[in-house]
Amino acid sequence: MISLSDLTRRIDRGELSPEAALAESLGVIEAQEPTIGAFVHRARNPRAAGEGPLRGIAVAIKDIIDTSDLPTEMGSSIYKGWQPRADASVVIMLKRAGATVVGKTTTTAFAALDPTATLNPRNHGHTPGGSSAGSAAAVAAGMVPLALGTQTAGSVIRPASFCGVAAIKPSYRLLPSVGVKCYSWTLDTVGLFAAGVEDLAVALAAMTERPELARYPLTEPLRIGVVTQDFAGSVEAASDAALRIAAAAADKAGAGVRVLELAEVFAEAWDAQAIIQDFEAHRALAWEYQTHHDEIAPKLRAKMDETAGIAPSAHVQALAVANRARAAFDGALADADVILTYSAPGVAPKGLASTGEPRFNRLWTLLGVPCVNVTADIADGGLSVGVQIVARFGEDAKALAAARFLEDALRK
Amino acid sequence: MISLSDLTRRIDRGELSPEAALAESLGVIEAQEPTIGAFVHRARNPRAAGEGPLRGIAVAIKDIIDTSDLPTEMGSSIYKGWQPRADASVVIMLKRAGATVVGKTTTTAFAALDPTATLNPRNHGHTPGGSSAGSAAAVAAGMVPLALGTQTAGSVIRPASFCGVAAIKPSYRLLPSVGVKCYSWTLDTVGLFAAGVEDLAVALAAMTERPELARYPLTEPLRIGVVTQDFAGSVEAASDAALRIAAAAADKAGAGVRVLELAEVFAEAWDAQAIIQDFEAHRALAWEYQTHHDEIAPKLRAKMDETAGIAPSAHVQALAVANRARAAFDGALADADVILTYSAPGVAPKGLASTGEPRFNRLWTLLGVPCVNVTADIADGGLSVGVQIVARFGEDAKALAAARFLEDALRK
Repeated sequence: MISLSDLTRRIDRGELSPEAALAESLGVIEAQEPTIGAFVHRARNPRAAGEGPLRGIAVAIKDIIDTSDLPTEMGSSIYKGWQPRADASVVIMLKRAGATVVGKTTTTAFAALDPTATLNPRNHGHTPGGSSAGSAAAVAAGMVPLALGTQTAGSVIRPASFCGVAAIKPSYRLLPSVGVKCYSWTLDTVGLFAAGVEDLAVALAAMTERPELARYPLTEPLRIGVVTQDFAGSVEAASDAALRIAAAAADKAGAGVRVLELAEVFAEAWDAQAIIQDFEAHRALAWEYQTHHDEIAPKLRAKMDETAGIAPSAHVQALAVANRARAAFDGALADADVILTYSAPGVAPKGLASTGEPRFNRLWTLLGVPCVNVTADIADGGLSVGVQIVARFGEDAKALAAARFLEDALRK
Repeated sequence: MISLSDLTRRIDRGELSPEAALAESLGVIEAQEPTIGAFVHRARNPRAAGEGPLRGIAVAIKDIIDTSDLPTEMGSSIYKGWQPRADASVVIMLKRAGATVVGKTTTTAFAALDPTATLNPRNHGHTPGGSSAGSAAAVAAGMVPLALGTQTAGSVIRPASFCGVAAIKPSYRLLPSVGVKCYSWTLDTVGLFAAGVEDLAVALAAMTERPELARYPLTEPLRIGVVTQDFAGSVEAASDAALRIAAAAADKAGAGVRVLELAEVFAEAWDAQAIIQDFEAHRALAWEYQTHHDEIAPKLRAKMDETAGIAPSAHVQALAVANRARAAFDGALADADVILTYSAPGVAPKGLASTGEPRFNRLWTLLGVPCVNVTADIADGGLSVGVQIVARFGEDAKALAAARFLEDALRK
């Protein structure tokens, strides 16, 4: 994989030109893309910028995110050839920081359920996960040092876990969703994929012009609360092992690690997430559902047909549960700085029939709190298993610092 | 003005065909539009639907709201001729309910500051207000029984007050903002204009498929808290008179009317609204600002130039104040069902140089609570003065019922 922070350091020191950094990405794309299939559109003549903290950095953009100079097809024939007028806010933020958009990446239709043809770079017989399939795979294959995805249930952290890359789903609306195709306005969150946690921090700080995101000092021993999310169902042995390995490494590196039990309201919130997602999708995709029903990809269409009858009152109640859970979350973390929990129920499923399950991501997306995926173990077949660090709302800098601590601890 | 509820009753009874109802609107548009200038685009062959609770109802859509069959130009040359792919959620909701979109209405550029050429139907020498200028004017001129606008500070309730029409800014996200050009994701709210409060209730219930919105029973005497919003600055005599007239009418009709003082956090929240709006506009309109700076309309451009330096930390603090104020609002209404307050500082300003001030709307938009404008008085020059009824978050049905009670009381 390409390390973004290594590139920016060398570029800042004058050891590497932005053009050469970009050319490295373009070379790997030429070599890997025919096999992996991470892109749906490629920029014609990508050029490195001369300025900005991310000059020379090639970035790939999930194809539900508007780009003014590349089509945005939402993974759906309904948007075949669709060319938006403007860049999404996150795209212009990247460009302003000097990054070069090299292409748009595959996405399940409207970032929902129907898998793309993208292969998992770690094992071509397995899914890279979804919905941000192409973005996770493009980073994992070493094609780009940075990619944008989105998460409504588990579409950033899960593919990151499956592909063995670092990823952050930041606090709700730290990154604007303006110009990003909506599935659920309460949940949709833009996230980043990169080779390592430091890369995420550098990129997020540059995009948002908040240098403090990359500079959080862990002065005291880190207090980690291990959460198993029993309400989310069972995990495979691989994920159980990854969580144990991560907890042991953190403990050995000096963190205070203890099991943390979540109150009942968080189990209720986990249930509420699905209601909010399904109810809002019927409003967000109302034009597509009303006028292009049969053209909607089959898994999503079946899901929408099945959930068409959710009552407005159920949505209101689910939002009320979400608000209660959000209000309770700071208290739940009274004795811990961050949570350590599963990123996914296991390794990437075999084949391309399913993108896997977002069960261990739903709650945190609903709470709107920052989540960072760190690869904790490599299982059979070279498949990666991640764990996630979760912090309080707005504590993205702390989440990144804790994830970097864990990443370092796991390397030892 | 055309009464939507009168039309739907006659259509339901078979006394009026949907085609005839639509034709009435089209006829008034032919007669009035050359003078008023409420529309930027007109549907070519608008046809009445045969089904749906709003069949035969002509609706006008503010031109920052995407339409799949009409351009959406955002009041800016940057979007000249721009044709979106999909309908905004609120547009397809209207179509599904049977309404006929007859055209797109004028808006200040990106729903901000620069006035349109639209005249106030009540007095052509005055502004109709903004930013939803064309939508308010189209209803006031009797051209359509229903129009959509949006409010980020005061862009629905203020033009409604200036044009003498009823309007609702519903609870935040009761109407989705998907497909609506974003200015501030924390604040932007879609609202409705109609001739009277019952019309708003019927239309909102039909769009959202929530019949309960039009059926709230006021069984006990209504308790009204009169709020003067001293933190928002002074009002003209006309607005002061309107508030007194409304309070007296409600009292005479049997409501319990008393002055309600708001705690300090609401004054802080009023200040916070502007910070949130200006900070988010720089992210929401980042592409336009970065790549088309000189093409942005002058008042908005000057405002954005002036506010480019707002620190992320100021935004974070403003959001925290907003959350505190929202949490405190239910308690502030412990002794009242609804609030009665000014809709605007006075009558519509003379000329078209300014759309007036949203000072008395900012707080409620930030709180995300439902607001309904009711015309309370007619001042010199035939200019209207509205007052607004404000209820708790989610109590849109109660806000509408209370506004209808006030409207009835004022007619006596």
